[in-house]
Amino acid sequence: MSSSEFQLRPIGWVRSPLVTLADAPRQGDEGGSDAELVFAAEFVDGLKDIHVGETILLLTWLDRAARDVLVVHPRDDATRTQLGVFSTRSADRPNPVGLHRVVVSSIDGSTIGVSDLEALDGTPIIDIKPTLGPVSER
Amino acid sequence: MSSSEFQLRPIGWVRSPLVTLADAPRQGDEGGSDAELVFAAEFVDGLKDIHVGETILLLTWLDRAARDVLVVHPRDDATRTQLGVFSTRSADRPNPVGLHRVVVSSIDGSTIGVSDLEALDGTPIIDIKPTLGPVSER
Repeated sequence: MSSSEFQLRPIGWVRSPLVTLADAPRQGDEGGSDAELVFAAEFVDGLKDIHVGETILLLTWLDRAARDVLVVHPRDDATRTQLGVFSTRSADRPNPVGLHRVVVSSIDGSTIGVSDLEALDGTPIIDIKPTLGPVSER
Repeated sequence: MSSSEFQLRPIGWVRSPLVTLADAPRQGDEGGSDAELVFAAEFVDGLKDIHVGETILLLTWLDRAARDVLVVHPRDDATRTQLGVFSTRSADRPNPVGLHRVVVSSIDGSTIGVSDLEALDGTPIIDIKPTLGPVSER
């Protein structure tokens, strides 16, 4: 075991009308926005098999989050009991990786359109993964 | 937009009988192992609401992956057409974040037991998230 750190390199950025935290819903399925995922040219070869209509898992780096938070009031509701951050989807957590399940609505070169995304404009993208079907179809 | 890098800090490490890549199944539900998640003491407060029997999303840093790979043969099968890595769950990808859906089998202080995990012994843990139920239950 080591305590070394690891370097994330953004592969792209979110382009969205959601600019401030006050604009953003708690989760994408609670009123997220249409958004574009704009990828750096060097990573475009990795996108070649993504298709319109597909549901993908988008991983982002929530760069406006606080990383020294371990307990939070769920949904910022002070009347609710504090929970450990690892039992919440709060952006504030030691490694603020955002996990978003979104549907691909368009593909144009290095830009992928998606719907119902709650991430803010300018949020770095770190990965995309397919959702997994049954073992027999992998 | 910037091309800056971000620092991940491990919050813990996987302890597993799976030691080499040859030991590991493709996905946890294809023969993963019982494993322990051993957390650094400073992050334990964030774990306080995790309970036995819960299904969690475990995020790891697949530190033995190749980061310069953009296309792969699915499941390392050279007879299959190469796919962009963002359409696969290959560990080899620009930011090798592992996403694992596992069930908590035990909790003992800073150690959480889980079942069906395909990550190798010593893999750094970067986050845990709850699975999301219906909007009305959040």
